[in-house]
Amino acid sequence: MALKNLAVRNIARADRALIEGLAEMGTATVHEAQGRSGLMQPYMRPIYASARIAGSAITVLAHPGDNWMLHVAPELAQEGDIVVVGLSAVNTDGMFGDLLATSYRAQGIQGLVIDAGCRDVSTLTEMQFPVWSRAVSAKGTVKATPGAVNLPVVCGGEQVNPGDVVVADDDGVVVVPRKDVERVHAAAQAREANEVDKRERLAAGELSLDIYAMREPLARAGLVYVDDLTEVDRD
Amino acid sequence: MALKNLAVRNIARADRALIEGLAEMGTATVHEAQGRSGLMQPYMRPIYASARIAGSAITVLAHPGDNWMLHVAPELAQEGDIVVVGLSAVNTDGMFGDLLATSYRAQGIQGLVIDAGCRDVSTLTEMQFPVWSRAVSAKGTVKATPGAVNLPVVCGGEQVNPGDVVVADDDGVVVVPRKDVERVHAAAQAREANEVDKRERLAAGELSLDIYAMREPLARAGLVYVDDLTEVDRD
Amino acid sequence: MALKNLAVRNIARADRALIEGLAEMGTATVHEAQGRSGLMQPYMRPIYASARIAGSAITVLAHPGDNWMLHVAPELAQEGDIVVVGLSAVNTDGMFGDLLATSYRAQGIQGLVIDAGCRDVSTLTEMQFPVWSRAVSAKGTVKATPGAVNLPVVCGGEQVNPGDVVVADDDGVVVVPRKDVERVHAAAQAREANEVDKRERLAAGELSLDIYAMREPLARAGLVYVDDLTEVDRD
Amino acid sequence: MALKNLAVRNIARADRALIEGLAEMGTATVHEAQGRSGLMQPYMRPIYASARIAGSAITVLAHPGDNWMLHVAPELAQEGDIVVVGLSAVNTDGMFGDLLATSYRAQGIQGLVIDAGCRDVSTLTEMQFPVWSRAVSAKGTVKATPGAVNLPVVCGGEQVNPGDVVVADDDGVVVVPRKDVERVHAAAQAREANEVDKRERLAAGELSLDIYAMREPLARAGLVYVDDLTEVDRD
Amino acid sequence: MALKNLAVRNIARADRALIEGLAEMGTATVHEAQGRSGLMQPYMRPIYASARIAGSAITVLAHPGDNWMLHVAPELAQEGDIVVVGLSAVNTDGMFGDLLATSYRAQGIQGLVIDAGCRDVSTLTEMQFPVWSRAVSAKGTVKATPGAVNLPVVCGGEQVNPGDVVVADDDGVVVVPRKDVERVHAAAQAREANEVDKRERLAAGELSLDIYAMREPLARAGLVYVDDLTEVDRD
Amino acid sequence: MALKNLAVRNIARADRALIEGLAEMGTATVHEAQGRSGLMQPYMRPIYASARIAGSAITVLAHPGDNWMLHVAPELAQEGDIVVVGLSAVNTDGMFGDLLATSYRAQGIQGLVIDAGCRDVSTLTEMQFPVWSRAVSAKGTVKATPGAVNLPVVCGGEQVNPGDVVVADDDGVVVVPRKDVERVHAAAQAREANEVDKRERLAAGELSLDIYAMREPLARAGLVYVDDLTEVDRD
Repeated sequence: MALKNLAVRNIARADRALIEGLAEMGTATVHEAQGRSGLMQPYMRPIYASARIAGSAITVLAHPGDNWMLHVAPELAQEGDIVVVGLSAVNTDGMFGDLLATSYRAQGIQGLVIDAGCRDVSTLTEMQFPVWSRAVSAKGTVKATPGAVNLPVVCGGEQVNPGDVVVADDDGVVVVPRKDVERVHAAAQAREANEVDKRERLAAGELSLDIYAMREPLARAGLVYVDDLTEVDRD
Repeated sequence: MALKNLAVRNIARADRALIEGLAEMGTATVHEAQGRSGLMQPYMRPIYASARIAGSAITVLAHPGDNWMLHVAPELAQEGDIVVVGLSAVNTDGMFGDLLATSYRAQGIQGLVIDAGCRDVSTLTEMQFPVWSRAVSAKGTVKATPGAVNLPVVCGGEQVNPGDVVVADDDGVVVVPRKDVERVHAAAQAREANEVDKRERLAAGELSLDIYAMREPLARAGLVYVDDLTEVDRD
Repeated sequence: MALKNLAVRNIARADRALIEGLAEMGTATVHEAQGRSGLMQPYMRPIYASARIAGSAITVLAHPGDNWMLHVAPELAQEGDIVVVGLSAVNTDGMFGDLLATSYRAQGIQGLVIDAGCRDVSTLTEMQFPVWSRAVSAKGTVKATPGAVNLPVVCGGEQVNPGDVVVADDDGVVVVPRKDVERVHAAAQAREANEVDKRERLAAGELSLDIYAMREPLARAGLVYVDDLTEVDRD
Repeated sequence: MALKNLAVRNIARADRALIEGLAEMGTATVHEAQGRSGLMQPYMRPIYASARIAGSAITVLAHPGDNWMLHVAPELAQEGDIVVVGLSAVNTDGMFGDLLATSYRAQGIQGLVIDAGCRDVSTLTEMQFPVWSRAVSAKGTVKATPGAVNLPVVCGGEQVNPGDVVVADDDGVVVVPRKDVERVHAAAQAREANEVDKRERLAAGELSLDIYAMREPLARAGLVYVDDLTEVDRD
Repeated sequence: MALKNLAVRNIARADRALIEGLAEMGTATVHEAQGRSGLMQPYMRPIYASARIAGSAITVLAHPGDNWMLHVAPELAQEGDIVVVGLSAVNTDGMFGDLLATSYRAQGIQGLVIDAGCRDVSTLTEMQFPVWSRAVSAKGTVKATPGAVNLPVVCGGEQVNPGDVVVADDDGVVVVPRKDVERVHAAAQAREANEVDKRERLAAGELSLDIYAMREPLARAGLVYVDDLTEVDRD
Repeated sequence: MALKNLAVRNIARADRALIEGLAEMGTATVHEAQGRSGLMQPYMRPIYASARIAGSAITVLAHPGDNWMLHVAPELAQEGDIVVVGLSAVNTDGMFGDLLATSYRAQGIQGLVIDAGCRDVSTLTEMQFPVWSRAVSAKGTVKATPGAVNLPVVCGGEQVNPGDVVVADDDGVVVVPRKDVERVHAAAQAREANEVDKRERLAAGELSLDIYAMREPLARAGLVYVDDLTEVDRD
């Protein structure tokens, strides 16, 4: 039997301390640390600048112009979760506004990632309830067709499974599979530690060409330095 | 005779108190109140955050790369009007800048909604002269081809008639036909009143599933709750 | 012989005082002053509001997903230069972040114009290191394929030659060919002087129709004023 | 009272002989003849090449993902009409397929112009039932929300009133307001007559520069001929 | 351990007779039959008209500008399979051309569905090797970064698991989960049977309003018929 | 002095036999042979299938909505040339139709590559006059603003100098700098020769993995073969 309209109550979550560590390091570092995978497409933009969160994904499958499932999600969420909404077709309607945000906050949900539109963005900004969305739109929605909660969804071009960790900031949204969280966290920490020293040397005027020993591989790859083009144009 | 290049001096306007009421309630509420119609496409974005206005539309039909008609509009405007510009073809040129904004403000025009580009956005932001546009672009325009003022135009995918009320904020731009203003205003007020109580209950932790009595219709529509997927995967 | 993977050390630059003058006047004025040419497409947007710079272009040709050449550029730059990056194919990867920005600043580079993505935008905003880009994306890049530095590139749909002056602000990015800088600067100054008086008259309520003597040419071009549509609808 | 969900039975139509004349002349000529207005945006494309039709518009307002009103239209159509569908929001769902086409043909409808998607395009091509649409998509639709038939709609960025004449071919779709049909037809005929001679002269090798006497105006506008660039580069 | 660069040799496939049945019925019918889910976004277009295939998916995860994994896929394919390629970031490079098509055909692969570009489309058309792609582009690719074969991928906005059935024709591409094939096949057959009679009645001039008994529900939903607008405009 | 509105009469051209050789080999091969550079963006599409041409570029700089310079080009062209049109801003207007095509053919011009729209595509298809364009649009243009002929332009994202060789077919448009023609022709021939044998071996069932000896480098790059996922999932 094919049961598509499911709401799954219990999902496994990653360790909260690791999740918080990923939030601090941000999407660029986390994306690098997991081998440059899991980044949603760059059309997923924050509604205001400077938010940076990470949490376990409560996944929602919704249909264009219908936000019914966004009302089902909060009951299944825990403190610190992030709701991630995939759509069954491209849509920019404003499926989430300040009333739902009030409810989500009351249930401990940290933020929303939605492959559709969002509205009431002035109020959401005042509330500092962060949303990453495909669009901003005042267009309201109906509550007519059931979808699913906590089944796998595609959002921003990436598959998100319930309980995967979502990291979101001004640079975009990265999905870390739940099983990879510990490994990615460790790799991200190593990467961060490595950057501190680099930043100081670069600020002092050292060139990355030298810090990363790139001159020799660049020459090998065929890069030629000339003083000016007269050197090469005389053929 | 086909007279397309017309500038119409006198237009009917809606009641100013009702218009101000619509501004306070904002696009999302107004859009809902008039049955989810009249919203311009979400590519119409404000040049800075937090502006919220409503006014009677002075409609302008302009041609790509030509802002001549934007100079004709202010003489025909009254205190509180909003100029709405439709284009005869897709265009992103910067048809409006700080000089025109100075003039528009001097004539009492509240803001601009333009299905093309806008420039001098730093200065417009300092002046707090709000513009909703398809693009920001420094590209200047000529004054060579006449268009029309106060004929019906298409802007952001919606038809706007002169004197229709335009409501614009961070969530987009909604057009309310002049004849519908009273009805929409009343419906929007009823909607707002209804939300105050909802917001409090949601903030206190009640779920919208219960407030809106959605559990039974969701079940009827086919949504099934399971504790986890092992319940459904054993076929 | 075709040597495409070149890094050219010495380029001619325009006069620094003229360049600074162009920065003060901004893209809209400069674009007008050089006859409405040289403007990059409007998808090139600043990562934060209110930056306004001008500088000599250090041009970089890079390949999608590969930021190797962005490490070569700073050694060839001088105080006040702007790095301009063209891509060999459409790409939105985050090719530039806070480490490179630290290095660029240490070498005196004022800002970056890149026809691809940029990341670490929160940090770049804190540093006030301005970037104009096609996208924001956390997606990192490899260092595998050489490109070129200081050869002509196409960026934002415009050709940029090394040493051309790039002016960038909230309205976009304009390229001024190096040889035209003096002429464009003079024309832009004349234009600015002309606007001071206009702004005052417009603020005082005079109409641009009268200031620019547009009434007669509008009538000649066929614009007809009517009091209302009943005048024309009786056919 | 605001009655939006209307189906209007009787509409005025233009003269059939004039409509057929417009079809023969095609969109490019008709668009020129009515002063370069009325052309839908170029994303409106035919599903197969070489169809060329004109007819009176039966206008339909539909909602995304809902094709209910497309079933209401055929009863209100007459032999030779074209159904024109505007949407209340951007949508690419396949709202029209071979069953509806069978019905439309049986009712004498010539073709469809729809600002959404279309499906069964192989069968429609075999049937030679022409459709101009924003997209091709197998995605089906519901029948849940009423819209309107024979009220004004926006389609492809142009307003279409019921009874306006729609001309459609490989170059796109042009709307001719019903009242302008006679005037536009005459202007288009004059234009066509004028082109016959031009075509022969051009085919014989005469240059349009000479046929249209453009050399003098080009020189006056500032175009300078040089033998090669050495003439201008010596400054 | 996280092993991303996997090539999985053995996958489960659906029954071949059922797959062929789905091909005959086409994407529109199959999409309806499985409850309007599984359709890839409409930017996935065939390189030539009239192809219609269905097969088990060999899934490939590739990186922008790198077609290495497309060389790994054919060894793992069986007669009648379809290769489905998801990308780790948006890309339009021509990752597949006539040499690979020659190899794919020799291995029994029926066609390709790729969320990137394709080239040599003239030759592929002559060979009648069908491809559904996001773009056509002559741009070649490198073979530098490993991806995966027969892990789940996202293609055209839909998740595809290895062994899922892919149906593709002029209307787009639909994914049917392997476990649902029997159920969807039965539902599609029922749907087809039902349409034969409908088509005849519609061709004979009966209206779908009557065949589907829509008049009463339309009235209940609020649709009002008027003879002309004078009936409603007298307020 | 800045003379932008130039028409340059004499340009250097590459050897005709080499140009014809490039046409026969097509864009994919030529693009590879010159190191994967010079390909216009994939939005440049042919108006009909199966055309394949190469010729020396007569470059035209035109302004949006203005095709005046397209009338200047044919006088400066020679037998076999291709006119390449760059625009000063994004535009989709139909700047070229059957009258101009008649003239171009009479002057020996082989085809057109234009970063804007084209119209009369049915007639152009009957004439078999090939055009690669950004759009098809019936929208006509004025003749008001001079541009340039035979100065460098940007078209489809690539710089084209007068006399560069343009190769165009169903896969897109490639620009070969005039000086590189001989070298690229030789490289393309070598590439073609190499493919004949490959094609035969692939058709006979050999795998490209073996022909190109990819198994060892794939293993080194980290690709792991497994029989099924149970081998890796037991952690």
